[in-house]
Amino acid sequence: MSTPKYDVLGIGNAIVDVVAPVDEAFLSRHDMHKGAMALIDTATADALYAAMPPAAETSGGSAANTCAVAAMLGAKVAYLGKVAEDQLGRVFRHDIGAVGVHFPTAPLLGGAPTARCLIMVTPDGQRTMNTYLGACVTFGEADVDTALVADAAVTYLEGYLFDPPEAQAAFRRAAKAAHDAGRQVALSLSDAFCVHRHRAAFRELVNGHVDILFANEAEITALYETNTFAEAAAWARRDVALAALTRSEAGSLIIRGGDTEEVAAAPTKVVDTTGAGDAYAAGFLAGLTAGKSLAECGRLGSIAAAEVISHYGARPQANVRALTGL
Amino acid sequence: MSTPKYDVLGIGNAIVDVVAPVDEAFLSRHDMHKGAMALIDTATADALYAAMPPAAETSGGSAANTCAVAAMLGAKVAYLGKVAEDQLGRVFRHDIGAVGVHFPTAPLLGGAPTARCLIMVTPDGQRTMNTYLGACVTFGEADVDTALVADAAVTYLEGYLFDPPEAQAAFRRAAKAAHDAGRQVALSLSDAFCVHRHRAAFRELVNGHVDILFANEAEITALYETNTFAEAAAWARRDVALAALTRSEAGSLIIRGGDTEEVAAAPTKVVDTTGAGDAYAAGFLAGLTAGKSLAECGRLGSIAAAEVISHYGARPQANVRALTGL
Repeated sequence: MSTPKYDVLGIGNAIVDVVAPVDEAFLSRHDMHKGAMALIDTATADALYAAMPPAAETSGGSAANTCAVAAMLGAKVAYLGKVAEDQLGRVFRHDIGAVGVHFPTAPLLGGAPTARCLIMVTPDGQRTMNTYLGACVTFGEADVDTALVADAAVTYLEGYLFDPPEAQAAFRRAAKAAHDAGRQVALSLSDAFCVHRHRAAFRELVNGHVDILFANEAEITALYETNTFAEAAAWARRDVALAALTRSEAGSLIIRGGDTEEVAAAPTKVVDTTGAGDAYAAGFLAGLTAGKSLAECGRLGSIAAAEVISHYGARPQANVRALTGL
Repeated sequence: MSTPKYDVLGIGNAIVDVVAPVDEAFLSRHDMHKGAMALIDTATADALYAAMPPAAETSGGSAANTCAVAAMLGAKVAYLGKVAEDQLGRVFRHDIGAVGVHFPTAPLLGGAPTARCLIMVTPDGQRTMNTYLGACVTFGEADVDTALVADAAVTYLEGYLFDPPEAQAAFRRAAKAAHDAGRQVALSLSDAFCVHRHRAAFRELVNGHVDILFANEAEITALYETNTFAEAAAWARRDVALAALTRSEAGSLIIRGGDTEEVAAAPTKVVDTTGAGDAYAAGFLAGLTAGKSLAECGRLGSIAAAEVISHYGARPQANVRALTGL
């Protein structure tokens, strides 16, 4: 098995974030579940955008955020995802390229516009998301560059990819290509509601095709339909080779076979939790592919997450590599 | 003279900001003067955007920022400016509408795209701007709604409007309509380099058509071609009925006839000075049109500016009205 050219290849929904602060009443008025991600159609997207306060547009997408942060931490990173040939698509392409991520996917021509996620941030820093998938939906098997997958140590997939039907097939193709080449497959569960929507498919995947699992407490308990974190963690220990389970300010639990590492959260002021899990996965994978210990991988994840939480937006504003000492 | 429906009507270049942090070396490599605004063509805009690190897109435009902040402070505000019927144009229209500013200007159809300003923020918080005017350039005399001008206590014009030739004619038409209706005309000099480009025209305007002048130290000394702030202030006292001259952390000097008020800057942490002058003008005008004293107008301006300086982006993230106690 040759040395891979890339440490991490992310595959996910290529989305531009539209971030605005709102109060709790705004969520109630628009029937939103705080902390969740909902899929919306064009009409809802237009109506909700009209009701939102002034916003900032920044490149997002869960796996894309992870890729951007991992690249900032010095990992060699590539990304696959579908944008349109429009202004938001160019913003997305610019931003991921500007941090050194290789992004070869051809844009969608003549179809839906680039996906966007309307993100409401409440005063407690929690983000509630409404995603219009647009061009994202068209990412399919044909977009999976299997040679690129074979040339990445870890192929990282976001759980949100399970919402567009075409993308599920792409996910399976990527996982097969990775394992055929002797590489590893990582999955982030992304969102508890997403897990509820696709529980059976996720269980089958996690059990049969995933080597490294990322999930927060709500997601892992949703996956295993249990109320206790400890029970969910026990199931994860049985299902996957390596799991990193995050618990917000309570830190994270890393499980590999009989080994367990408890990692503290890095101290920070909570402004906006958008991208916290993505950044944690980035730090963890940057460490893992650089041969660091599990405890060190968790520490790197915690530091990256803390930076992203301390301001609006899912991508670091500080030199996150310097923060980690990598 | 009837009571005006609006306190402030802003007229300016309708621009979306693209904000990214850079280091000092980035400015040198791209031959930029720190703190200045330069006009760039499409090719330069594309090349510079490609070289920029990841960025956030937010609605901007100097007078538009002032309008947004004044509305947040409780003033009744309208705005005139030209965007295209494209994505950035919709972003601009959404954001200014979301804070309650009446924005009736029809979009440009089939022409240049919405203007954008590439803003590099150095570690000292200074912003260096490169503006692609796009649809802005087409704002002309025909876009000046003279009935709206007549229905605003103060018509506020940004100095940047002097760069597109069509807009200069619009400026003069607006000033005439305001005075014909017995209203006041305010001008912000916007940028020292802009003053250098159009000094003679600015001098004629300030002397003959402006009632309220906003300028920082670099701008007012550029206007009067003097090295001393005191001398420039003396000229301003002679030329305009009311002048508010800002000096960054040294606060501001307000001059009206024989009266002089010195106002301290509000304490803040400097992250990004983009929009500081715009926010000061907003606080000042919100106070003035609410019948406050000059010292109170200056205090309101200082508080609004301090909020905007404390984070990335030209528009407030906190409840700026609550901060001022208005």
